[in-house]
Amino acid sequence: MLSLEHLRQLATKTDTKIVQLVLDGLGGLPNETGRSELEAARTPNLDELARRALCGLADPVAPGITPGSGPGHLAIFGYDPLVWEIGRGVLEALGIGFELQPGDVAARGNFVTLDGAGVIVDRRAGRIPTERCVELCARLQAEIREIEGVEVLIRPVKEHRFALILRGEGLGDGLEDTDPQRVGLKPRPVRARDQASERTARVVRRFLERAFELLADQRPANGVTLRGFSRRPDIPSMPEVFRLTPAAIATYPMYRGLARLVGMQILETPLEEDLNALADRLRESFERYDYFYVHVKKTDSCGEDGDFEGKVRALERVDEILIPAILALRPDVVAITGDHSTPSVLRGHSWHPVPYLLYAKHLQSDDVTEFSERAFMRGGLGRFRLVEGLPQLLAHAQKLLKYGA
Amino acid sequence: MLSLEHLRQLATKTDTKIVQLVLDGLGGLPNETGRSELEAARTPNLDELARRALCGLADPVAPGITPGSGPGHLAIFGYDPLVWEIGRGVLEALGIGFELQPGDVAARGNFVTLDGAGVIVDRRAGRIPTERCVELCARLQAEIREIEGVEVLIRPVKEHRFALILRGEGLGDGLEDTDPQRVGLKPRPVRARDQASERTARVVRRFLERAFELLADQRPANGVTLRGFSRRPDIPSMPEVFRLTPAAIATYPMYRGLARLVGMQILETPLEEDLNALADRLRESFERYDYFYVHVKKTDSCGEDGDFEGKVRALERVDEILIPAILALRPDVVAITGDHSTPSVLRGHSWHPVPYLLYAKHLQSDDVTEFSERAFMRGGLGRFRLVEGLPQLLAHAQKLLKYGA
Repeated sequence: MLSLEHLRQLATKTDTKIVQLVLDGLGGLPNETGRSELEAARTPNLDELARRALCGLADPVAPGITPGSGPGHLAIFGYDPLVWEIGRGVLEALGIGFELQPGDVAARGNFVTLDGAGVIVDRRAGRIPTERCVELCARLQAEIREIEGVEVLIRPVKEHRFALILRGEGLGDGLEDTDPQRVGLKPRPVRARDQASERTARVVRRFLERAFELLADQRPANGVTLRGFSRRPDIPSMPEVFRLTPAAIATYPMYRGLARLVGMQILETPLEEDLNALADRLRESFERYDYFYVHVKKTDSCGEDGDFEGKVRALERVDEILIPAILALRPDVVAITGDHSTPSVLRGHSWHPVPYLLYAKHLQSDDVTEFSERAFMRGGLGRFRLVEGLPQLLAHAQKLLKYGA
Repeated sequence: MLSLEHLRQLATKTDTKIVQLVLDGLGGLPNETGRSELEAARTPNLDELARRALCGLADPVAPGITPGSGPGHLAIFGYDPLVWEIGRGVLEALGIGFELQPGDVAARGNFVTLDGAGVIVDRRAGRIPTERCVELCARLQAEIREIEGVEVLIRPVKEHRFALILRGEGLGDGLEDTDPQRVGLKPRPVRARDQASERTARVVRRFLERAFELLADQRPANGVTLRGFSRRPDIPSMPEVFRLTPAAIATYPMYRGLARLVGMQILETPLEEDLNALADRLRESFERYDYFYVHVKKTDSCGEDGDFEGKVRALERVDEILIPAILALRPDVVAITGDHSTPSVLRGHSWHPVPYLLYAKHLQSDDVTEFSERAFMRGGLGRFRLVEGLPQLLAHAQKLLKYGA
């Protein structure tokens, strides 16, 4: 199979520009009308692009596998998600711009509400405002700076979410989640999965004891849970492997974190997602980079909420605002896909393959005339692993040398 | 590549039901009329299902590779046949319900007819009746119980077929077949392929000497050949890896043996294949299991006999009897495929990909309106490795958790 090592040897720097638009949760399913979100949406610009492009369906991980956002994005960026794994804790830390050092162990934290018996009654502490989260983290951090020689770093994320980072020698990330994933249960005890993580488990236990003491008088955030203990994977960067100078235009922390992990420059965006602002940022920075990852979250969040019509409107807005803005810049290669499907009827990520569109100068278009899952089934790209997309973009941008004599 | 270990970590138990119908040797080729068996058959129920389903073509092993029944079935059950190998001897032993122990070496035996010079004149001894096979095996077993400390087990199968199992310490299965695969030749000498099998070769040589002595006065079964020396692979079961409670509804010993190998419960069926009985068994046991492997042999045996019209009729019978019976139970997921193609015009297994139909609630159907090889070429599942089918069935049955954060 094609490996990063093959690509590293073939990749070459050129002046051409690639725009990778990621519509989060792009794939959908028919609702009771018999049409999927993409089929219901009025998308003249995407349809016209489909007419001139090559289309297909891609499996982010493998057929049948429902991906998290991490694996889906790694595949888009050219990294096999079955080879490279990213823990939830690492994602959370990267998402707030925290510079993880090799060896750091990160976890995703939730402030929660406990009843008198210590049972979780709200896994998100009523989604406390972000300012409250900032205050609580500051309070914990002021009192807990170090345990058994391990530096403890507590960083607010958004609403009830925070990141815990442990920094020191000889830490392990083989720890089980303390989040029981549902209410009506107490937080689980900290357990090490391997010997190398025993000491880390002791440190985390002590952290939790201190945190529960310090939060005892708080309402509603009188407890915490931790999950996704993990270390930053030693992943080679896109500049290093693919000889790209990549930039990310993404509003939400997690996606900025994923982009940072593979060595992208993160461009500033407003705090709320705004397609016009994303387009402006792309236009302003177009000369300075050769690969642009543009991320739209709204398509996914509507799918997660089961909001079929909302997802339709989100797609129509992309069609109206982003597509013309991207094409106006005349990039050499444009790719449009999702990191996973999020059908409104399923209210969550799904295993269905994601639509994939590739537009470039040197290609023979297929017969697809509509941007939809069903139309893309008969597209010229066929059905493929999502990780196989990036090499095709590089190729169409003349950024790959010949393999072999 | 997606491994069993990945799937083991994602698999979860749910109440949903999967029916996997295997039409043995399903794929065909056009005869002089220009139509394949599937195209010639009148199959309104399969066609209607194809309209509502996703269709495609699957390669049981890899493009161009003609599979035996073992590899084809392993792929259907979710095990990569390039990773897991099953010898013919093991298949034969499993097929008669023999409980192979780790380390046992099994071979498939044939009673044969030899002429005065020891040359094989009938590789199946005129297909002696099964009762005769039972008598002959009993006679051999009574006289041959142990050789060089190795226990020798001789078990009748059907007609001229028997299984030989050697049980003891330090046996090897690196032995060449003694069956020359055609008449006019003497049985081949027993040869070890590796040092670890030298002693086993001596034991088999001695077994054959004794067997030929004991059969010398018999007609037509006055000799034996052995092939497919093998040990049971240490394959993790479907309950263990996929968290399924699987049942097999199959008439023929080999397929029951294959199902047993991967941990299925084997349901009782009449000795002769009877589609109504298969349907009854499925209906009666539907509440107790969540994965049903239903096997139809007739499609393959007609193909092997070069009986184009017979295969057409066998397909029509499946369409008339089995398909409505399966759909009446409203399973959450239905998959229909073959373990390999058996085109009547080739009178044997072939390398052609097998038609694959997937029907479930949460899918977007493709444009296919006919159950045939040609129509499936343009199906939404595309062309894929057969082993990638099972994860898609699990996904559609909501039996796989999300991969990664």
